[in-house]
Amino acid sequence: MGTDDAPATEVAGAVRALVELREDVEIVLVGDRSSIEGALEEHSGYPSERLHVHHASERVLPEDRAAKVLRAKPDSSMVVGLKLHGAGEVDAFISAGSTGAVMASSLFLLRPLPGVERPSVATVLPTATSPTVLIDSGTNVDCKPEQLRQFAHLGAVYAKDILGAENPRVGLLNIGEEPGKGDELASEAYELLAADEHLNFVGNIEGRVVIEGRCDVLVADGFVGNVLLKFYESVALFVAGLVQKELVATGTELDLEHALRTLDYSEYGGAPLLGVNGVSIICHGGSSPKAIMNAIRVAAQAAREDMVADMREEFSARVQEGALE
Amino acid sequence: MGTDDAPATEVAGAVRALVELREDVEIVLVGDRSSIEGALEEHSGYPSERLHVHHASERVLPEDRAAKVLRAKPDSSMVVGLKLHGAGEVDAFISAGSTGAVMASSLFLLRPLPGVERPSVATVLPTATSPTVLIDSGTNVDCKPEQLRQFAHLGAVYAKDILGAENPRVGLLNIGEEPGKGDELASEAYELLAADEHLNFVGNIEGRVVIEGRCDVLVADGFVGNVLLKFYESVALFVAGLVQKELVATGTELDLEHALRTLDYSEYGGAPLLGVNGVSIICHGGSSPKAIMNAIRVAAQAAREDMVADMREEFSARVQEGALE
Repeated sequence: MGTDDAPATEVAGAVRALVELREDVEIVLVGDRSSIEGALEEHSGYPSERLHVHHASERVLPEDRAAKVLRAKPDSSMVVGLKLHGAGEVDAFISAGSTGAVMASSLFLLRPLPGVERPSVATVLPTATSPTVLIDSGTNVDCKPEQLRQFAHLGAVYAKDILGAENPRVGLLNIGEEPGKGDELASEAYELLAADEHLNFVGNIEGRVVIEGRCDVLVADGFVGNVLLKFYESVALFVAGLVQKELVATGTELDLEHALRTLDYSEYGGAPLLGVNGVSIICHGGSSPKAIMNAIRVAAQAAREDMVADMREEFSARVQEGALE
Repeated sequence: MGTDDAPATEVAGAVRALVELREDVEIVLVGDRSSIEGALEEHSGYPSERLHVHHASERVLPEDRAAKVLRAKPDSSMVVGLKLHGAGEVDAFISAGSTGAVMASSLFLLRPLPGVERPSVATVLPTATSPTVLIDSGTNVDCKPEQLRQFAHLGAVYAKDILGAENPRVGLLNIGEEPGKGDELASEAYELLAADEHLNFVGNIEGRVVIEGRCDVLVADGFVGNVLLKFYESVALFVAGLVQKELVATGTELDLEHALRTLDYSEYGGAPLLGVNGVSIICHGGSSPKAIMNAIRVAAQAAREDMVADMREEFSARVQEGALE
């Protein structure tokens, strides 16, 4: 019930997922049953035996305070869906509702994995080559170096299980290439990352090379991560807009969408909250059905690969071992 | 002697400046006299009576350590040029040499203005509307809130004197719009900026709206400022490259340079080091003659407006008064 025109977009995305994705995917739509069934009437020819509706009478609104949702709206689609996941009745949870509310509710209902100090929202950035997992992308600010090291491990498991990166290259967002560059946080985090034998650390990544895709995981404090992420989306749109204007002014035909398909965020299926006991994926409120479908694809992949078990293992073994304390 | 093909680019830029800019501009080219005179032979039809050459036998190289330049290369074009400015023989200094070396030498030879804790390199960002002065763009990391407030004043004088913004709108780069958002630095800086009656503070600016040009001065710690700046240049180039590829693939003609002229950094004439007793402007090593000409235009404007006196006054009056300590 989270997209701007819920539940139509969620329903359209789910139907498309049932048709296009692997047949092991079953979908439970959580929300107002009559609205959902109404939206489903627009669709036909999909394997409806793999689609279920679970009624929830309430809906989290953007103005609801994130920390209060659990108590104020216990029968909201968000809380009910997360509880289904927490109880093991579904293998993953997806929401296009308010990011803060999904995070707060996921943290409470799924709990952090043992050893994870700060679960973190990651976002997959399109680059000129392979996609990069940016972690943290806005959840945690004023991080400590050790937390950045933990982000690296969370991101590395995601890059491996979901993006198929065999030995994920981990980079640190910084303002210079050499060790010792950057602010206190970055220069200390560099030391920890470089000393961690369980990470394939490739060093500092400057703002100007982020776009080259030199790493599979880009580690950053959530402040700079969030600025980078939001700026990226807006600059790409702005530049595309300038080109579009010139195309119109000169009466030139060009399939701009095709030209810029590399930048299509909807391919990457939402932003996962990593480091909790479960798969919780956050989508934009303005998601398209395609973006919802891709979030379902990623969620199914996370379940198939048992990503959460991999993270639990990473933290019980490799991360603890790498801790310098 | 700082551009990648010095002194040809500097000479070409200077000649163009003498032809295109106001006639009060006189230029002193500092560097190896014979190389400069050789490069000048390529040009004719310019008012040579306003062009002077001042010999300097050494040249600062990228590998020279910034802090050592002053002692190691006292007869470098950089040091000699800055000394001419310090002695009042020229009204401004421009270099396309190593940023660190220009900064270190400028700080030592020109000295910070009274009350300025950290002189700061600003960069003018092209936006969808009017340009934005980003300060700090990479000089100072691990800043304190009060230092960000000082950046705001430095940037405001620059925006007024150089960009003609009457009552410069000051924004704070942050990860949310409301007061209280962000990390410790940003939320505390917000308080200081909002309480300073001498600033036209317009609030927090998120990554996604930087491109809209909602403020004339965008205040940030140099870490995030530098990431933003370098990322901007690279994303714009990347998107343009995708479009270019599609144009070639489809055999379509479009003047992409014209379409993207808004993004042309060379219009803004280099990055000024603000908060010192002088005008010191740093250009890219890869600057074009046009970029050098525009740096000269900005330098001349700073001299005409007596920008340094305005900053001195700002710091002796308004900034001190606004200090909450």
